[in-house]
Amino acid sequence: MNILITAGGTSERIDDVRAITNHSTGALGQALAHAWLKDSRCHIDYVTTKAAKQPQADPRLTTYFIEGTNDLFETLQHLLTSKRYDAVIHSMAVSDFTPATSFSEPAFYQAINQALPHFGNQVTPELIQQVLAEQEQSTGKISSDTDHLFLVLKKTPKVIQIIKQLQPDTLLVGFKLLTNVTKEQLFSVAHTSLIKSQADYVLANDLQQIDGSQHIGYLLNQTGEVGQGKNKAELAELIVTTLQQDLQRV
Amino acid sequence: MNILITAGGTSERIDDVRAITNHSTGALGQALAHAWLKDSRCHIDYVTTKAAKQPQADPRLTTYFIEGTNDLFETLQHLLTSKRYDAVIHSMAVSDFTPATSFSEPAFYQAINQALPHFGNQVTPELIQQVLAEQEQSTGKISSDTDHLFLVLKKTPKVIQIIKQLQPDTLLVGFKLLTNVTKEQLFSVAHTSLIKSQADYVLANDLQQIDGSQHIGYLLNQTGEVGQGKNKAELAELIVTTLQQDLQRV
Repeated sequence: MNILITAGGTSERIDDVRAITNHSTGALGQALAHAWLKDSRCHIDYVTTKAAKQPQADPRLTTYFIEGTNDLFETLQHLLTSKRYDAVIHSMAVSDFTPATSFSEPAFYQAINQALPHFGNQVTPELIQQVLAEQEQSTGKISSDTDHLFLVLKKTPKVIQIIKQLQPDTLLVGFKLLTNVTKEQLFSVAHTSLIKSQADYVLANDLQQIDGSQHIGYLLNQTGEVGQGKNKAELAELIVTTLQQDLQRV
Repeated sequence: MNILITAGGTSERIDDVRAITNHSTGALGQALAHAWLKDSRCHIDYVTTKAAKQPQADPRLTTYFIEGTNDLFETLQHLLTSKRYDAVIHSMAVSDFTPATSFSEPAFYQAINQALPHFGNQVTPELIQQVLAEQEQSTGKISSDTDHLFLVLKKTPKVIQIIKQLQPDTLLVGFKLLTNVTKEQLFSVAHTSLIKSQADYVLANDLQQIDGSQHIGYLLNQTGEVGQGKNKAELAELIVTTLQQDLQRV
């Protein structure tokens, strides 16, 4: 049985020393790996970051280290096209945005002012597009000699989308983390995300209910709640036993 | 003898799950602590982050954890006003900027377009100031439903400046890390930073010369190079023995 797990949080490089990081300890991914390894027929490909907690070394577990969303995309594409997975658990916190370019405050208003007359003295999507394209080419080093720095981020590709595209028959578990919402809102957003990513399950959780050893989460499928857990070990068990039952039925 | 060491890299919060991090393993700070602890009269206050490598536990070492530049500022202010330090080694990688506010692409050009007529159809520093102030008040949650996200960062206070302000008689070692410059440029920038921060020494290093176990660095004082090292253990020894000699002379 081949299982693919992603865990930890991506880190999007701003320059040689700075990055935008998505906070995730990787502890739930670690618990998932340990729960799967109890099944002696199970082989795991584990995609994570160096900053994340690592599962214990095991001959049946291979680790792939990534940093940013691009790395992650390429690694998943490679793995999903070279091996068939029975299940994919995508618990990694993936950045929605990655740095595209940056402006010091004077560079920023100079660029807009130069473009304004050509766009009827209005900032339009086309003006922004032109200004950003010019700045991306100039690849200016980030100056610290400015009161405000304008960091422009661009959307990253939705990595989870390629999983079912490349392996429609794999069992996919996505994750949805929100902050301080009602259970109804959490379930509604998680359900939408499940549909969009064609996931079989989504683990819905709220940052306000994660603290120390507590980690409340709900496993949902297309029709509703499948189960819940109140710490990472329980959530890992819930996910693994649910998938194992599905895999035995096949 | 009281020594204050800062180590690791700050992490500036963007929202509940994202941050801008300054990459630093904290390994040099760890080596510095170990080198100082060989002197049995030495007590260390060690300011670092949870993500950094930690020195071994020792009854003569007290650790203070910080996250962002603000935290760091307050912690140093507290320590420097409550205890006298013989030396301060500020090896922490401190963020120059911290998130102030953010705009989705449409919110951004709408805000500028609304303000433009009041500023003669020119983007001016005053227009930017007004637009940023209004957006900071609206405290909009970061939307992921936009192609580009404009993250506006503001300059952080120069934490190193308060060290000599609060303790003019302490021995201060600053750090200057550049990327891919000549030795002359590195020394020149490091010298300027030493003067600005009133440091007694500055450890100048270039990211291109830090790789695995190699870490080339130069210790400078106001008159020039005092010594150099080619790995973290050598650099820690160089800094500690140089300061010990100065402290014995007093």
